[in-house]
Parts: sequence; C-alpha cells; structure tokens
Amino acid sequence: MKMIKTKAAIAWEPNQPLSIEEVDLMPPQKGEVLIRIVATGVCHTDAYTLSGTDPEGIFPSILGHEGAGIVEAVGEGVTSLNVGDHVIPLYTPECGKCKFCLSGKTNLCQAIRTTQGKGLMPDGTTRFFKEGKPIFHYMGTSTFSEYTVVPEIAVAKISKDVPLEKVCLLGCGITTGMGAVTNTAKVKSGDSVAVFGLGGIGLAVIMAAKTVGASRIIAIDINPEKFDLAKKLGATDCINPKDYDKPIQDVIVELTDGGVDFSFECIGNVKVMRSALECCHKGWGESVIIGVAGAGEEIATRPFQLVTGRVWRGSAFGGVKGRSQLPLIVEDYLKGKFSIDDFITHELPLEDINKAFDLMHEGKSIRTVIRY
Amino acid sequence: MKMIKTKAAIAWEPNQPLSIEEVDLMPPQKGEVLIRIVATGVCHTDAYTLSGTDPEGIFPSILGHEGAGIVEAVGEGVTSLNVGDHVIPLYTPECGKCKFCLSGKTNLCQAIRTTQGKGLMPDGTTRFFKEGKPIFHYMGTSTFSEYTVVPEIAVAKISKDVPLEKVCLLGCGITTGMGAVTNTAKVKSGDSVAVFGLGGIGLAVIMAAKTVGASRIIAIDINPEKFDLAKKLGATDCINPKDYDKPIQDVIVELTDGGVDFSFECIGNVKVMRSALECCHKGWGESVIIGVAGAGEEIATRPFQLVTGRVWRGSAFGGVKGRSQLPLIVEDYLKGKFSIDDFITHELPLEDINKAFDLMHEGKSIRTVIRY
Repeated sequence: MKMIKTKAAIAWEPNQPLSIEEVDLMPPQKGEVLIRIVATGVCHTDAYTLSGTDPEGIFPSILGHEGAGIVEAVGEGVTSLNVGDHVIPLYTPECGKCKFCLSGKTNLCQAIRTTQGKGLMPDGTTRFFKEGKPIFHYMGTSTFSEYTVVPEIAVAKISKDVPLEKVCLLGCGITTGMGAVTNTAKVKSGDSVAVFGLGGIGLAVIMAAKTVGASRIIAIDINPEKFDLAKKLGATDCINPKDYDKPIQDVIVELTDGGVDFSFECIGNVKVMRSALECCHKGWGESVIIGVAGAGEEIATRPFQLVTGRVWRGSAFGGVKGRSQLPLIVEDYLKGKFSIDDFITHELPLEDINKAFDLMHEGKSIRTVIRY
Repeated sequence: MKMIKTKAAIAWEPNQPLSIEEVDLMPPQKGEVLIRIVATGVCHTDAYTLSGTDPEGIFPSILGHEGAGIVEAVGEGVTSLNVGDHVIPLYTPECGKCKFCLSGKTNLCQAIRTTQGKGLMPDGTTRFFKEGKPIFHYMGTSTFSEYTVVPEIAVAKISKDVPLEKVCLLGCGITTGMGAVTNTAKVKSGDSVAVFGLGGIGLAVIMAAKTVGASRIIAIDINPEKFDLAKKLGATDCINPKDYDKPIQDVIVELTDGGVDFSFECIGNVKVMRSALECCHKGWGESVIIGVAGAGEEIATRPFQLVTGRVWRGSAFGGVKGRSQLPLIVEDYLKGKFSIDDFITHELPLEDINKAFDLMHEGKSIRTVIRY
C-alpha cells in the first residue's frame, strides 16, 4: 500500500484559521489502522490547543478528537479490527496490558502516552506529510482529516447500526459528561447535582444526572441562552452568576439547604472549580473537575473544605475504558437510552470548519458536526 | 447540686503559659453530665489554639480535648449515662438525629456546632467561672480541668476494664489517625502509603496501615528522631525531606514507581498537603488531609493532578462516630489489636502541663499524658 492523499484541516500555527488542504498519509504501520472519518465534532479542547495556550500544543498539526468512521485498512499484526468495521477513535486508548489498564481503577491507559503527547504515532514518527514535511498528529486521533491513521489500541469497534454522524460525539463530549456522572461520581437516585458550564459536556452531565434519578439538577452558566436546552435535558434550576452579588457557591448552598451532593466543573476555569467544590454539602459533597484549565493555572481552597468532608476529584473521558466500554454506550444509544440529537446544533462540511470554531466562541453552538 | 470547685489549667490569653488554678464549676444542666477527668493527652490542636493563631480561639478558656474519665453526676433528662460510667468526651458529638448523623455518610454531627465553636454549652452559657466571670469551654470538652461538664451527646461510654490513662488518647490522636486509614481512605492489604508528619496522628496512621496489611509504608518527617518509633509501628521507609534537593513528592514517586496508593497529611502545613497529593499515583491515588492548617491558609495544585485520577479528601476524628463507634475501638484495644503505650512518651501531673507543651514544641514527645 502506498501513500494516499487526504483532505484535512491543518493547524499550521497557533491562533490562525485552519487551512483546508490535501496532505499525504502513509499507510497504517504495524499495530495501526487507517480510518475514513465520516463525521467529527468540534470540541473546546481543539480550540484550546489552536489558541496556542496549550503547553502540549504542537504545530503544524491536524486537530480533531471527536470522530467516527470506518476502517479502510489495517496494518501488520492488527487482529481486533477489520476493514469495514465502524469505529470511534480514542484519545484515551486501552491496551489492556499496562499497569493502569490492569489496575481496574482507571481508564487512563499509559501505553502510548509519551508519543501521543508529542504528536507522534507509537513508533515515534508521523503518518501525515505535506510536501515531504511531517504534520503532527493530535491526541492520537486527528479527526479533522478525512483519512487518519490510529493505533489499534486507540480504536473502539461499534455497532454498524448507528449513524456515525451522531455517535461521533461519543468520542469525547457526551461520553465525558455522562461517564463523570455514572463512573466517576456515581450519582444515585435522589442526589442533588450542580453543573457549571452548559457546553456539550455540562449538558451531557445534566442528561445523565436526570437518567440516574437526581432529585435536583442545578445548571449554572453566564450565558442564559443555554438554559432552554439545559431544562429540556433535565435541569430543575438554571442560575446565572451575573444575577447575584455574592459568590455563586453561597447562592447554591442557600438554595439547597447546605449544598449539593455532587458538582461538576465543565469549563476549565480554576475559579469556577473552587466554587464547584465549595457549593458541595459539608460532610459528603463531592466535586468533579472535568474542564481543562489553562497552562500553569492552579486550583485553591482552604483545606478545611476537605477536612469537613468534601471530596475533590477529576474525570477524564468520563472514566470510560474506550475499547471495552464505549461500544456498550453506543448500544445504549441504539436502545434509545439517551439523546445525541439535542447536542448537534449545527452541521457543516470540512471546508467550513473555521465557522464551527466561530459558532463555539460566540456561544451559539453546542456541537457542530463536520461531515466529510 | 451546687457549684463545685475544680482544679484546672486556664488559658487566660494567647501565647502565655497555662495557669493552674481553682475555678468554679456549675452542676450539669439539662442534657449534660459532670465528668471527673482521670487523664488527658496534650495535642497539637491545643497548642495551635493557645498560640493565638486559631481564628476560633476564645480566651479565657480551659483547653484539652483528649481525655477520659468517670461520670460523677448527670443533669435532667440524661438517659444514656449513669454515675460511675467510664467515658471519653467527644469534640465531635453524635446526636443521632441531625441531617448529618442521619445521612450515614459522615461523623460530623452538627447538633451543637454553633455553641461549641463559641466556647459555650448548648444553652449558650458556660459552666466554668472564676470569681463570677465565665471561663469558656474548648471543643466542648475542656479536659484540662479535673472536673468538666459535657453535653450527653458528646460522651462515649466505654468499657470499665480499660485503663483511662491509656484510652484518653483515643479521644483524639490515635482514633483520628487510625480512622483516617480504615474509614476515610479504606486502605486495603497490599496498598502503598505515605505518611507526612510523625506526631501522634501520623504514627497512628502507620500503625493502622500496618494492621490492614499495607505493603509499603513510607514515613516522612524533618525530625529523624521520630524514625525509630515509626519503624517500630510499621514504617518500611523513613524519609527526611532535608536530605533531598528535589521536591519530596518527586522522591516518593520515583521510590514507588509512580506514586503511592494513599497519602496522609498529619501536620497542618498547606505546602506539605500539596506534596501529599502529588506523590499519589496517577489514575487512583488518594490523599487525605488530617492536619489543621493555619487561619486563612489555602491548598493549591494544578487541576490536572485531579483530572488524571488523584483524589483529594479530608478526615476529621478519623470519620469515627464517637458514641456508636468509639466504644468498639476501645474493645479492640482491650483485645490487644493495637498499641497505645508506644504513643505515651511522658506522663506529668496537671501542675506541669506547660512542660508538656514544651516537650511537644521541642519534638521530644509523641504524647504526654496528664494524670490528675
């Protein structure tokens, strides 16, 4: 198999629009697969890296990590995937063999962490090239390319019965939010919940909290245009911090007679992370950080908050092990257990991907799905 | 019953030696009991309040919160205690009726929190007087008085077969450390543990970690004189941060191939709290804050520490519900399941209580027991 051509959105440098170009793609090497991406979401994390403030950001690169597609070719030694399989690329792989996978305590497989963080395939090289010069991968997935190469351990094989232009959003946002509720926090029926930030992840948190029977779901955002959808998905209260003179955690503690059982930070703002912790109920409230903060930023609180029983934790990809668990989430979607349509506010072709970023920055979209 | 006289160590003002004097003590009122304290430990928290840096510190007061004694009289309506009962006063009460007690999730009964924090009995007044002027209670216990009055809900009735001059230490330090391991962190056989600060609490953490079968117990202190006892109680490694040029969390992460399963901060130093969190293993390590930090001090870390799977929590009185669970811990002591003797490095009469503070500040004692 020879080098192929693929259409891709290239991030040549920070803080510049993506450039739609044809690039060269090497065939999948040992333990890798070639995927034709059918659709991809555009997530805040892509925008964060593109902004240049992500310390791990590498340029030039092909962003995108929320995609779904079909296997077009497999490299040497690939046994678990075949041409024609419907798949979701995973930025959190699952090798099944590393200390982390074997621990039974985390989904953070570290098998290819080092090379992935450097924009490389596990062998230390790239598959994308432009005029002979390497273009870096992003989060091991690079779904802003119609064809992409991904390690076998970073691919979830899913049912062929689901529309790929929907379940692409399970590659990041929706799974991250739902998993934070069910896997990380383990919210139970009757619990109260506060959700900070009503983007795709926050809305997925709300949806999952409603599904598990949370008694009260408080949605917080400074953009009240998000409130209608939040309510549709299950929010019982919608709060705009700008409407209050006091810290939002105090507002929530009063509203809930002492604080919520669980809170979720879905923004990446370290000050909001503090509010999210401090709005939790003394004695047992737990706060889950999902948002990705800026480089070098730190969270802070008085330790008394923890000594009096609050718990501070985080969640990545909803604690979901991609290869073994994501296919089951897809099955749940097939069974109608949750909605994806509500999250898709816009659809655009790859050529208009920069508009997807604009819509996101303007707070007008939840998710724009790019269809190839 | 009339006012009685009792010998007590009075903290007239911050940062001054305690003054041994005779004070007047009102009989127990409704829902209260009079206890003759047989012995009391001297804890860092007493020293913290005496130093004047405790924002809740009130003067003049009678400190002490780690005592054991015998019920001498009961007030109106007291049904669960009788004269002659052996008891441990509880700075964390257990009313069994408040939202917190009923939650099943915390030991932080809030029934008398407000008055206790103000140095008062639940009716808003004091029982101690000197020449007609009120002397404030401390942590609801004031065990630096031979006789003290305590609310019924703040008294654990224990076996008469145990020496009170030993089990007084279960009123705070040893229970706090052991409970943090078994109740809060739920350390299991084979887990690795790091313990920061080798005072009474840290040593109790080590003892409990060994009991539950921790595979590796790393003891950290800048005073190497503590290491012999730490090893005797179960520490497998003793580390002095002063021996290293790099952050102690990096030292521990290297030593343990990625970090420990659980860490415990037993000092009250917010910088050490950060080290304790960051020496935990990615993916699952949990850090428990036990130490009490100075007023207004804050903990900080990068949120990435939590998003990548570490958990930050705290523990107060080891998560132990005093009235229902402390008697069982006393039974365990009776059965020889753990040691108290190792913690008692000095014994002194009340008259020499200031020497107990000196020994603590000089790092020469683990616990001095004051015997009346």
